[in-house]
Parts: sequence; C-alpha cells; structure tokens
Amino acid sequence: MDQRLSLITLGVSDLARARAFYEDGLGWAPLSAEPEIVFYQLAPGVGLALFPRDDLAKDVGEPLAAPGSAITLALNGRSVVEVDQTYAQAIAAGARAVKAPAPVFWGGYSGYFADPDGHLWELAHNPFCEITPRGETLFSGPSA
Amino acid sequence: MDQRLSLITLGVSDLARARAFYEDGLGWAPLSAEPEIVFYQLAPGVGLALFPRDDLAKDVGEPLAAPGSAITLALNGRSVVEVDQTYAQAIAAGARAVKAPAPVFWGGYSGYFADPDGHLWELAHNPFCEITPRGETLFSGPSA
Repeated sequence: MDQRLSLITLGVSDLARARAFYEDGLGWAPLSAEPEIVFYQLAPGVGLALFPRDDLAKDVGEPLAAPGSAITLALNGRSVVEVDQTYAQAIAAGARAVKAPAPVFWGGYSGYFADPDGHLWELAHNPFCEITPRGETLFSGPSA
Repeated sequence: MDQRLSLITLGVSDLARARAFYEDGLGWAPLSAEPEIVFYQLAPGVGLALFPRDDLAKDVGEPLAAPGSAITLALNGRSVVEVDQTYAQAIAAGARAVKAPAPVFWGGYSGYFADPDGHLWELAHNPFCEITPRGETLFSGPSA
C-alpha cells in the first residue's frame, strides 16, 4: 500500500454548522460545496471533506462509533486494479474487511477496511482527481 | 488558520501490533521508530504517527472516546506566535478549548481544540520539522 494519503473525511452532525466553523471561523475556502458534502483542498495535496455522519455511516456500511470518532482516511489508487490489489494486501495483512471495493454512485470505485485498532481506511479510485508523480492528490471541483 | 495539514495521529492499543500491520503487512517504512511513538512520512508532505491510546489521551488531556475514535489532526505553525494566533482564532470561531498551547516535553509547543463535532485538532510548533513554502510538513528523524 502506497505510503500516501488522499483525503480525510470528518463526519459531522450539522453540515451548515461545520462549514460555518471552518469557513467563517477559520477562513478556509471550499473547493466545492454541494448540499451533501463539502471539499477543501489542503496545501500538501490532501483533501478534507465535511460529510454528514449518517451519510458517512451509510458509505462505510456500518454504524460509526461515538461522536468525535467519525473520521475516515482515504488512499486513492491510480486505477481500479490498484484499489483491488491494495485491499487484498490489507486483508492479507490482518485488516478487517468492512466493505469490498465496488463501483459507487459518484462514478468512482471504493472499499473500506479497518486497521487493528478500528481506524477506517477507504481505498478508492476517483476518475475526477489527479495523483501527481509526487503522490499529491489534487481534487477538482464538480464542474472541472 | 492555514488550509494545511501536518500530521495525523492514530491512537493504538498495541504499538507492536499496529507497526506489524503497517510495516510488515502494508509495506510502509518508518521515518523514526521509538519505543513510544513511530512516525511515517507520507508522500504529500504529511506525517502519520502511531501512538499508544493512553499516551494520546494524556497528550490531549482528556479521555478519548470509543475505539476507532482515537485520531487527531495536527497543523504545525511556523512559530509559537502563529500557534497562539491560530488557537485564539479557533476559540473565537466556537471551537472548544481542550488544552491551551504550552511548551511540551519533546521541545515543541502544542495545544488542542475540538471542532463543533468533537474532532481534535492539535496546533503545534515543532522546531524539528520543516514547513516548505508549498505548505508541506517535512518531518526529520530523531537524529537529524
């Protein structure tokens, strides 16, 4: 599995409240903002998403633990094959299979595993984002 | 607050087990490995640390929630003053004050706030790591 990171997703109970905190409060500018999810491009080539907890639980496919625990880390592969290979590697390494990689409604391909402490990793192929040779994941807005 | 990320810390219940998963299982190479904490440099200029849950709770200054929730996000400032300013901004924006920034035993300066959903952000100045003009946080090993 590449020693990289693509996206951190924070599950939130009130998306408007969370946006107000990060944007009005901290001064962040969203890359894209839809009613159901907001993306921020962070400077080192990593994305951060605010996503309703309930939707995140559905995406993961199992209930999330206590408040504050609704965080997933994602590694985007350069292809569907790479996602499958990395998922198989993680399971072989002792990860708990949470959701086998499969096509998802937004046009990508995604699965989840849990590390030995229960931390959720999403493995995804996102045809709408670029992974640079240096390993940075560059997200593009919905219209790009 | 800069739209950047420096470090993700995963609280783990068994550091040896967690290292075996990420290193032997997934093939990651540590940047530095000490008995109490292990750092990995991720490709986009972000670090990931494995740190015992109990130690992380002490560092945060309050009990962590359920298993799987022991994740902190860190933003490293370029100076102590920048850390203080960002902390004040976050509190003014409605963040919960968890630990006011103060000098810490490892030679840096660190504080924590919780966002509206309880996600823990550490604000730190680490004199041993470099922040590039592009915002990447480059960690160095203990002997560097």
